[in-house]
Amino acid sequence: MEKDNTTAKAAIIVIGNEILSGRTQDVNVSFLSKWLNEVGVKVIEVRIIEDNEESIVKNVNELRNKFKYIFTTGGIGPTHDDITSKSIAKAFNLKYDFHKEAYEILEKYYTPEKFNEGRKKMAKIPSGAKLIYNPSSGAPGFIVKNIFCLPGVPAILESMVHGLKDTIIGGKKILSQTITVQTVESEIAKPLEDVQKQFKNVEIGSYPFFRLGKIGVSIVVRSTKKNEIDECNKQIVSFIKKKKIQIIER
Amino acid sequence: MEKDNTTAKAAIIVIGNEILSGRTQDVNVSFLSKWLNEVGVKVIEVRIIEDNEESIVKNVNELRNKFKYIFTTGGIGPTHDDITSKSIAKAFNLKYDFHKEAYEILEKYYTPEKFNEGRKKMAKIPSGAKLIYNPSSGAPGFIVKNIFCLPGVPAILESMVHGLKDTIIGGKKILSQTITVQTVESEIAKPLEDVQKQFKNVEIGSYPFFRLGKIGVSIVVRSTKKNEIDECNKQIVSFIKKKKIQIIER
Repeated sequence: MEKDNTTAKAAIIVIGNEILSGRTQDVNVSFLSKWLNEVGVKVIEVRIIEDNEESIVKNVNELRNKFKYIFTTGGIGPTHDDITSKSIAKAFNLKYDFHKEAYEILEKYYTPEKFNEGRKKMAKIPSGAKLIYNPSSGAPGFIVKNIFCLPGVPAILESMVHGLKDTIIGGKKILSQTITVQTVESEIAKPLEDVQKQFKNVEIGSYPFFRLGKIGVSIVVRSTKKNEIDECNKQIVSFIKKKKIQIIER
Repeated sequence: MEKDNTTAKAAIIVIGNEILSGRTQDVNVSFLSKWLNEVGVKVIEVRIIEDNEESIVKNVNELRNKFKYIFTTGGIGPTHDDITSKSIAKAFNLKYDFHKEAYEILEKYYTPEKFNEGRKKMAKIPSGAKLIYNPSSGAPGFIVKNIFCLPGVPAILESMVHGLKDTIIGGKKILSQTITVQTVESEIAKPLEDVQKQFKNVEIGSYPFFRLGKIGVSIVVRSTKKNEIDECNKQIVSFIKKKKIQIIER
C-alpha cells in the first residue's frame, strides 16, 4: 500500500499492567484513533507495555523519532505504579519536579486538607512540559516535544483530548466508506484484489463478521481522496451485483 | 518490580488496519492474556501493526528472540489484505506454499465448487509450519518456531486456542486477588506504596473506577506465590480498616 505523505503519522503507547494481564479491556486506542483521524492524523502503531521505567524509556525513545506524534495513556495518577511522568522525564533527560501551574491547578481543585502527598505527586512532571488541561478531574496531562501524555481512565482521557484540537497539526483527513454484503470473504477475494491493484492510494480492507445469526463481509475503502473512493466503490458495487450478492448496507 | 523467572513470557502482535483505524475494537488481547495466564505465560508486550509486509517482518524479527512465545492475530484469511502467512515466511526465510495437510483439511471442509482460489490461499503457509486446528471454520492457523499465528475473528480464535494447551509450556501461574474499596486513589497512595516496598515479588496495581455513579479503587495484588499475596493483602486490609474506608468487594 502506497503511503500518502500528506497524512501525519502517530503511535500510541498504552502503559499499564492491567491491560497486559487482560484484567482491563483497553478502549482508549479505538477512541484516540478515531479522534486523531478526524484531525488528519493516522495511527500507524500501538504498543502496550508494562508499568516499568526501563520499558517506558526504551519504547518512547524508539518511537519518538519515527512518528510526528506519540500519545501515551495511563500511569499519571497518584499511586506508586503511576510512573509515566518520571519515566518520560528520564527518556528526555529532564528534571522531574513540581510544575508551578500544575501545582496551582491542583491546589485550587482540592481543599487544603485533601491536597495530600498522592495528589501533590500529580503536579510532578518533566521540567518545561506544557500542560494538557483536564476539565473532569483536575490533574493535568502534559506534552514534552512530540509526546502527549494522557491518563488511562477513558472518560477523563476523552474529556482532555478535545482541548488538543488546535495543538495538533494534522494532514488530510482519511475518508472511508463501507459496503456491507451478505457473503463470505472467499467469494469476493479475487475481484476485490483486482480492484485494489488499480487503486494504489486507496486502502481496501475486508472484514468478515458473524453477528445476529448472519454472516457477512464489510468492505472498507479508505483514502484521503474522495473521488478515488467513489471510483473504487463503483467498481466494487459492479462486481458485487454481477455476482448477485446482496448488499446489506452502504 | 522484580521479575519472577519461573514465568514464561510472551508478546502479542495484532495485525490489522481495522484495529489501528479504530473501526474495530480489539478483544483478542484481553482474551489471550487471560488464557495464557491460566497456562503460566505472562504477556509482557503487545504491538498493533499495519497489514504491511515490511512492518510484520520487522516486528516479528524484533520480538521473537526476546520472548518465549509470540502470538499473532489477524491476516490469515482469504483476501488480498491477509498477508500474515506470507510475511511470516519472509521473516524466517521460508518458502510460502501450499501445505499438504492444510490443503486436505480445506478440501474436505468445502464442496469442490466452493473450494475457490481465496479458500485455497488459506492452505498456503510457511513451509514446515505446524498446524493449529480450527474447530469452527476449517482454515487452520500455524506455528513457526515460537510464533503462533491465529486469526483475527474473536470467536474463531477462541475456539482454536484451547487446542494449544498441551503445546505451550508455561511457568507458574500468576495468581491475583482484588480488593475493591470505596475511596479515591490518592487517599491510599502512600500506605499502598509502603506495602509494595516490602513485597518485591508481588505486583500491586491500583485502578480507579467511576461506574454506576460510584467512585472506587480496585487494588489488584499479583504474584506466583499465594502466601505472599495473602500476607500482602493482610497488610492492605489492615490500613484500609485503620483509615475507615469501606471495602466493597474482596
